[in-house]
Amino acid sequence: MRELLKAVADGSLSPAEAEAELRGYVTGDAGRFDAARDQRRGIPEAIFAEGKSDAQVAALAETALETTGRALLTRVSESHVEVLETHLADAFPDAAIDRRSTTVRVTAADYEHPSLDATVAIATGGTVDGPVADEAELVCVDAGTTVDRIDDIGVAALDRTLDQAARLREADVVIVAAGREGALPTVVAGLVDTPVIGVPVASGYGHGGDGEAALAGLLQSCTVLSVVNIDAGFVAGAQAVLIARAIDAARD
Amino acid sequence: MRELLKAVADGSLSPAEAEAELRGYVTGDAGRFDAARDQRRGIPEAIFAEGKSDAQVAALAETALETTGRALLTRVSESHVEVLETHLADAFPDAAIDRRSTTVRVTAADYEHPSLDATVAIATGGTVDGPVADEAELVCVDAGTTVDRIDDIGVAALDRTLDQAARLREADVVIVAAGREGALPTVVAGLVDTPVIGVPVASGYGHGGDGEAALAGLLQSCTVLSVVNIDAGFVAGAQAVLIARAIDAARD
Amino acid sequence: MRELLKAVADGSLSPAEAEAELRGYVTGDAGRFDAARDQRRGIPEAIFAEGKSDAQVAALAETALETTGRALLTRVSESHVEVLETHLADAFPDAAIDRRSTTVRVTAADYEHPSLDATVAIATGGTVDGPVADEAELVCVDAGTTVDRIDDIGVAALDRTLDQAARLREADVVIVAAGREGALPTVVAGLVDTPVIGVPVASGYGHGGDGEAALAGLLQSCTVLSVVNIDAGFVAGAQAVLIARAIDAARD
Amino acid sequence: MRELLKAVADGSLSPAEAEAELRGYVTGDAGRFDAARDQRRGIPEAIFAEGKSDAQVAALAETALETTGRALLTRVSESHVEVLETHLADAFPDAAIDRRSTTVRVTAADYEHPSLDATVAIATGGTVDGPVADEAELVCVDAGTTVDRIDDIGVAALDRTLDQAARLREADVVIVAAGREGALPTVVAGLVDTPVIGVPVASGYGHGGDGEAALAGLLQSCTVLSVVNIDAGFVAGAQAVLIARAIDAARD
Amino acid sequence: MRELLKAVADGSLSPAEAEAELRGYVTGDAGRFDAARDQRRGIPEAIFAEGKSDAQVAALAETALETTGRALLTRVSESHVEVLETHLADAFPDAAIDRRSTTVRVTAADYEHPSLDATVAIATGGTVDGPVADEAELVCVDAGTTVDRIDDIGVAALDRTLDQAARLREADVVIVAAGREGALPTVVAGLVDTPVIGVPVASGYGHGGDGEAALAGLLQSCTVLSVVNIDAGFVAGAQAVLIARAIDAARD
Amino acid sequence: MRELLKAVADGSLSPAEAEAELRGYVTGDAGRFDAARDQRRGIPEAIFAEGKSDAQVAALAETALETTGRALLTRVSESHVEVLETHLADAFPDAAIDRRSTTVRVTAADYEHPSLDATVAIATGGTVDGPVADEAELVCVDAGTTVDRIDDIGVAALDRTLDQAARLREADVVIVAAGREGALPTVVAGLVDTPVIGVPVASGYGHGGDGEAALAGLLQSCTVLSVVNIDAGFVAGAQAVLIARAIDAARD
Amino acid sequence: MRELLKAVADGSLSPAEAEAELRGYVTGDAGRFDAARDQRRGIPEAIFAEGKSDAQVAALAETALETTGRALLTRVSESHVEVLETHLADAFPDAAIDRRSTTVRVTAADYEHPSLDATVAIATGGTVDGPVADEAELVCVDAGTTVDRIDDIGVAALDRTLDQAARLREADVVIVAAGREGALPTVVAGLVDTPVIGVPVASGYGHGGDGEAALAGLLQSCTVLSVVNIDAGFVAGAQAVLIARAIDAARD
Amino acid sequence: MRELLKAVADGSLSPAEAEAELRGYVTGDAGRFDAARDQRRGIPEAIFAEGKSDAQVAALAETALETTGRALLTRVSESHVEVLETHLADAFPDAAIDRRSTTVRVTAADYEHPSLDATVAIATGGTVDGPVADEAELVCVDAGTTVDRIDDIGVAALDRTLDQAARLREADVVIVAAGREGALPTVVAGLVDTPVIGVPVASGYGHGGDGEAALAGLLQSCTVLSVVNIDAGFVAGAQAVLIARAIDAARD
Repeated sequence: MRELLKAVADGSLSPAEAEAELRGYVTGDAGRFDAARDQRRGIPEAIFAEGKSDAQVAALAETALETTGRALLTRVSESHVEVLETHLADAFPDAAIDRRSTTVRVTAADYEHPSLDATVAIATGGTVDGPVADEAELVCVDAGTTVDRIDDIGVAALDRTLDQAARLREADVVIVAAGREGALPTVVAGLVDTPVIGVPVASGYGHGGDGEAALAGLLQSCTVLSVVNIDAGFVAGAQAVLIARAIDAARD
Repeated sequence: MRELLKAVADGSLSPAEAEAELRGYVTGDAGRFDAARDQRRGIPEAIFAEGKSDAQVAALAETALETTGRALLTRVSESHVEVLETHLADAFPDAAIDRRSTTVRVTAADYEHPSLDATVAIATGGTVDGPVADEAELVCVDAGTTVDRIDDIGVAALDRTLDQAARLREADVVIVAAGREGALPTVVAGLVDTPVIGVPVASGYGHGGDGEAALAGLLQSCTVLSVVNIDAGFVAGAQAVLIARAIDAARD
Repeated sequence: MRELLKAVADGSLSPAEAEAELRGYVTGDAGRFDAARDQRRGIPEAIFAEGKSDAQVAALAETALETTGRALLTRVSESHVEVLETHLADAFPDAAIDRRSTTVRVTAADYEHPSLDATVAIATGGTVDGPVADEAELVCVDAGTTVDRIDDIGVAALDRTLDQAARLREADVVIVAAGREGALPTVVAGLVDTPVIGVPVASGYGHGGDGEAALAGLLQSCTVLSVVNIDAGFVAGAQAVLIARAIDAARD
Repeated sequence: MRELLKAVADGSLSPAEAEAELRGYVTGDAGRFDAARDQRRGIPEAIFAEGKSDAQVAALAETALETTGRALLTRVSESHVEVLETHLADAFPDAAIDRRSTTVRVTAADYEHPSLDATVAIATGGTVDGPVADEAELVCVDAGTTVDRIDDIGVAALDRTLDQAARLREADVVIVAAGREGALPTVVAGLVDTPVIGVPVASGYGHGGDGEAALAGLLQSCTVLSVVNIDAGFVAGAQAVLIARAIDAARD
Repeated sequence: MRELLKAVADGSLSPAEAEAELRGYVTGDAGRFDAARDQRRGIPEAIFAEGKSDAQVAALAETALETTGRALLTRVSESHVEVLETHLADAFPDAAIDRRSTTVRVTAADYEHPSLDATVAIATGGTVDGPVADEAELVCVDAGTTVDRIDDIGVAALDRTLDQAARLREADVVIVAAGREGALPTVVAGLVDTPVIGVPVASGYGHGGDGEAALAGLLQSCTVLSVVNIDAGFVAGAQAVLIARAIDAARD
Repeated sequence: MRELLKAVADGSLSPAEAEAELRGYVTGDAGRFDAARDQRRGIPEAIFAEGKSDAQVAALAETALETTGRALLTRVSESHVEVLETHLADAFPDAAIDRRSTTVRVTAADYEHPSLDATVAIATGGTVDGPVADEAELVCVDAGTTVDRIDDIGVAALDRTLDQAARLREADVVIVAAGREGALPTVVAGLVDTPVIGVPVASGYGHGGDGEAALAGLLQSCTVLSVVNIDAGFVAGAQAVLIARAIDAARD
Repeated sequence: MRELLKAVADGSLSPAEAEAELRGYVTGDAGRFDAARDQRRGIPEAIFAEGKSDAQVAALAETALETTGRALLTRVSESHVEVLETHLADAFPDAAIDRRSTTVRVTAADYEHPSLDATVAIATGGTVDGPVADEAELVCVDAGTTVDRIDDIGVAALDRTLDQAARLREADVVIVAAGREGALPTVVAGLVDTPVIGVPVASGYGHGGDGEAALAGLLQSCTVLSVVNIDAGFVAGAQAVLIARAIDAARD
Repeated sequence: MRELLKAVADGSLSPAEAEAELRGYVTGDAGRFDAARDQRRGIPEAIFAEGKSDAQVAALAETALETTGRALLTRVSESHVEVLETHLADAFPDAAIDRRSTTVRVTAADYEHPSLDATVAIATGGTVDGPVADEAELVCVDAGTTVDRIDDIGVAALDRTLDQAARLREADVVIVAAGREGALPTVVAGLVDTPVIGVPVASGYGHGGDGEAALAGLLQSCTVLSVVNIDAGFVAGAQAVLIARAIDAARD
């Protein structure tokens, strides 16, 4: 520990890095960041931006970069992104920002990107499912899996679904995001013999809207599926990563 | 009216027939039977057997036979059927009984079966959907439509669904009964360009069980479907009959 | 296919039209438009405007016009309409815009309006049901059915309901939009012997508000009704069109 | 109080009567009976038989007879009634038993029946609503109102509803019991200008079954209605009695 | 009818009045106003302002004044009221405006106020229940009943509830508006022997919030209560008026 | 540990006692009994009898007696009790059985009853709340608190509630069990200045039945209450014991 | 009373103080403040700011300060606080303002702070639970208990939970605020032998969001917990105070 | 195909085997068995016994044995098992029956058991979760994974949970079955870095009972979990098998 404190003293380690090393998490004005989760659970803590101020989000992202080399942010608004970009221009001028819909990943210039020898297919029923699939996708990208994104294959035009069967079968894990009645994950899971994770999407209005019909449908599915909560793209992506990593490890 | 009463007096008309003629419905110990509904609405009143005693059901069936030439009974138990058979052996010894799962249709010997120049396809996802489809089927049979019954084409084995696309397309109206996640009606409605009526079936357990997931899914369907309540095979069949009759009339 | 590509090359076919011809759908920045749905399902894909930007809606409408000769838009805002009008003034200066409440139909100058020999009656309980009925109406108009619109006949003033019984009986199909307790579709279905489609409307406050009481009431109706989701005027109209087209075909 | 105890001592007052006089309620092995509720609230305590043993019900009925001259029992089973009859044959050999469906009223031979100068109309939609209406009816009979019972006027056959408009308008208060979609109370309340109390009935299956659709519909009704809980015939009857008594008092 | 048209021709009758006379309702740009409801049902149609534009509300109020001498408006916003006042300053310069929270009653200068010989007590649990009680109160005032308003007697300070028992007992009808757990109507109904109408109020947060706990509690009440929907002050007031009018008629 | 094993070897300690000593819990055919919970949490593990066979319940009770000197059983049936009595007659012939409704406590002859210097008042609204209150009571008795049981003080007869205010105020902790609308705990909590724990009881039918109205009402209560789940008499009693023990400890 | 009026007359008592003394509560334009609740129930009335205007909140706070020496305000907005500060600068220039998240406590300069010899531990799962815990904390501070606040010990990083076991065990009462799945209160209650009060927090999205999953989880907890409604920090704090005061009294 | 028919002709292939070969599924009186699902999806069709007659279950099991070498049956009753055993004694005298709670696996004598080089840990919170875990376990056993069953580690005794952390970490996939508040899967998923599948179990009573609290809690979990429906042990086991097979394939 004396080593660590020396490093802080001579500036080769930031206080945040030191706290992360010692306690596993870092506490700042914007809240706490669990820097050790990545090692403990194999999945980094994502910064849930919704309900946080622009400044809080930027500060948490900086802490994440400082201690784990990159930051994953979900449910960001335009305003969050603008302030984040300005902030990082100062704090991490060489950081790369990858934004997809409402999910953002920032990587420090010297961050070593991991790579997993496994493919996650991510399918959507329609345009409205895109942001949730994007959230899942960035988690997979962050972990280094190959991602095969297959959009707009909802069952209203079944030919398009079937046209993609071969691609879907080639993946090691399949994530399917679908709203409304949520029939797509069931149809996909009937076509492949790999694990399928269904993500209900909060689309639709009236009875069963906001994703509740899709969630109930996935839970009742007559095929084998596991499910995450409505719009929980992060959880679906993270579960796919855990499976992909196990496969990658076995492939070595 | 004097004619009518004379007919009662000389026995050529039963009191029930006369009451039906005059008031449209017949009242007995077992309750009221709406003998005029068939003419008013184009659909006979079905006798809902659940919760009624065996004797009540038999009495109502007799009234229906007497006044409209046939009786439709839904949600009958074994015991209902046994007592009904005994009762009819006396009252209408030549009546024909057509029973499918929990639905029964009795026709008097001299009943003139109607015939409609239209076909209703009735599809099911699996065995558990059978009794609900049977209920719809007997209503269609009663009205004289051609019925094309297509069983066990649930999307868990999508090839079987697709194999039946041609048959489904040939019908004038399609009824699809499906429980669990209720994906079948959505898939079928994406394959045909005729009216599709979805019937959610009360199967499944856990969240969304008892048909609620299927109902919500049908209401949220990304295709064009109209829906009836959970297990409401009678209503689905009757709505199909109303459409079929309009087509039949137009064909003349 | 060479023909097609030549046509693109010489400008007699737009790239969108060519893509629609080849793949059935067109992909642009604003998302995907399913140009083939009309032929496959007999009902065009409507552009669901809610949650899309003004520019996206205008771009999708242009694609629809280009490939199918007209565009149907549902749940449009004032701002959507303004941008759409500006956009079309450039892109399709001769297009005709038909707007009813939150539904809009745009037809190219050379679009050949279809005509169906069948009448759809569309009834509402009160003013609040108007926009949902308008959505259904434009779908019927688009398909070429005769529409008989009968407004403000809610059962709180039962005489007005009964006064319209004759008109309701003359239609081939009846759509009834009603909110609050949703008694009107049940009463109407008791008056006619044609197919009735009930649309619950998201009015009312407190328990059973937002259309849930009306939906539950329609599903429980003691008469023969089929139902669509709350506020789903498009689906009700499309289902009526499918029935009307079957009748029209039979009339030929 | 000494008078009272003397009366107990010489047998002219039973201990139960004395306890009722002193404390307002009587406690026995079968539970407590609130003998004073009738005076305090204008409505006697009904003995809710469901879930109680035959012996408990009989004992409570005896206490009620002893202290208030009559007993009202709701939700009784066949077995409750049999044991009650046997028990009363001993305890109150001259008592009169009035049973309607699952509601029973027993009056001691010397009970002075009250009389109110007011009429309560009680209407039902169909046979299934009968027992709930019977429960309301016996409460009204017990209080001495005139009851006009009008059965089987559900809106599926609207003519029958309208045929009874004049009778409904003649009553001072109207109770309407209806299950399924519960449209009848709304239609009736649109026909009369007197207070209407709606009672949802636990009929129907599927979504909105067990009376929930009817309850939501009554609460959302576009006319003026007050409502009681599903199957709460006793409460509807009692509320009608309170209104009838106010009218009766004003008529004097 | 010729008389009527002459009166329109010579200006002694406005077109709206004539339409109201002939058809019972008046149709304008702002929608339809049911001018005959007052006579048919004994309760005028209230103008539900929520969701209507300021201009629509003002126009409907003018129609109501023109045809029935006064207008009742519920759920008005500040902006509704301002435009209404401006509008009436022109159209009905002598009209009197009575506003209580979100309910407004406008009476023409020559409107003859009715009077009923009956008292309605209106009690609230706390400040938050005020606007709902105000809505009920204006309906009672409009009908000419005496209103005894008793505020802030929620059971958290039971002494205050009990202190008002005598006043509550003196009324002919009692309305109790209460949110949160809704215990007050049950306690009040245990104190009086007159009809009590409970109005659940949409207060509270978390589970059972928005008035659902109060509604369920009123429906389950262990005393005799009838209930209206959450926040339905108008319906509670109107039901009380119907009872009060019956009492008033009997008193004559 | 050698001591312990010696004790087992010489029979002065049963294997179950030894396992409990070493691991904290005992495993048998009937399942696992957590013998250490009493020390860890201050509350013994209760044996939840519902769904267990008679033999399993008897075996678990024996294990509890053997390792902790007494057994608490909740939700026992008649048949559970009979088999338990027979079983204990053999295994623990001197054990004392205290049964109240569906809760049973068995104490070994040599069990040293604890005593706490604190009083828990347990109040009920009516007879139906009795078994839930009994469950709470036996937990308090087991822990050695003084229990003051106050039955039948539901607010339908408010005088009875108020008559008990003084007794309620004397207790250190108050438990109130109430079903239907659950108004009693709110009224009681307004009368005392000590901690009140509300237990909703699964009574009532229709909307909000099975205790849901009472639960929502307690959570929404306008006074200070903490709540346990519907029918969770054990948890209410155990929470009261933890408070009582803290007070007892402070009193020493 | 004459004394009191004299004091008002000579200005040594404000009219509000006099009304509070005489009636227990004070009525102003901003509503009623229950000045006596503190004495009656041991807990002051908190001013629920949500939905009240800035001016109303400031006026109620002034009344509270005037009559009870301090004011507790919950669910305040930024704007509430600003106006309050301005207002108090005039009315109570020496008052101290303690603000934590959305809860504010104002104490008059001469207010004598109470002190209780008891400790309440308040734990949270994560940052989002902070404001609810703050609400509970200020109630405890107001009553004079020692508060031990333990933040960010959610079970996603179980080591942090376990690290705090000793601190949690030292408190007399424990409050645990947790959202999402609400596992923390159950885990904490398994670690301590003192009363634990769980507060579900309205975090999370999708199914079971807004605190409903946490509430259901706390009610189903396999350990001994009592529960308050979602986000009801005030009630949790107040219940802890009532327990702490009982312990404090016993310690004397 | 001629080969196949010859084989049927000479008896070396049963008609069922031939139908399975040709169509993928076999149809009998007891319903349809999807013999090809195993190859298509990697998971055999389980025979869902609930609601089927004893004879139907036995017949389906025989078909499964005949065509796929083994049968998996879920939700069997005592009576199902007895008839099955009798039936198999005749039809497959050498078959081995493996029964765990309500799940049964029958293997033909010559069935070649597969083997997967992967371990699935299956953990339960308590005894009540056993049958659901058994269902998952038999699916894993059937597929040839190693199963590590870890029972009774519910968080009420957190030490026992933590004691098993090392074993849980060693598995390739973890299934956790838990009812009541469902905290265990969240705690376990915080301890391991492998995929965790949560199965809510239908235990508990009152609000959130029947597994709904556990389901909502798992969906809201603050860690990474995927979820299956309440009591869906089969789906959890099958999903684990799909993951295990992918790992096994990668290990080769």
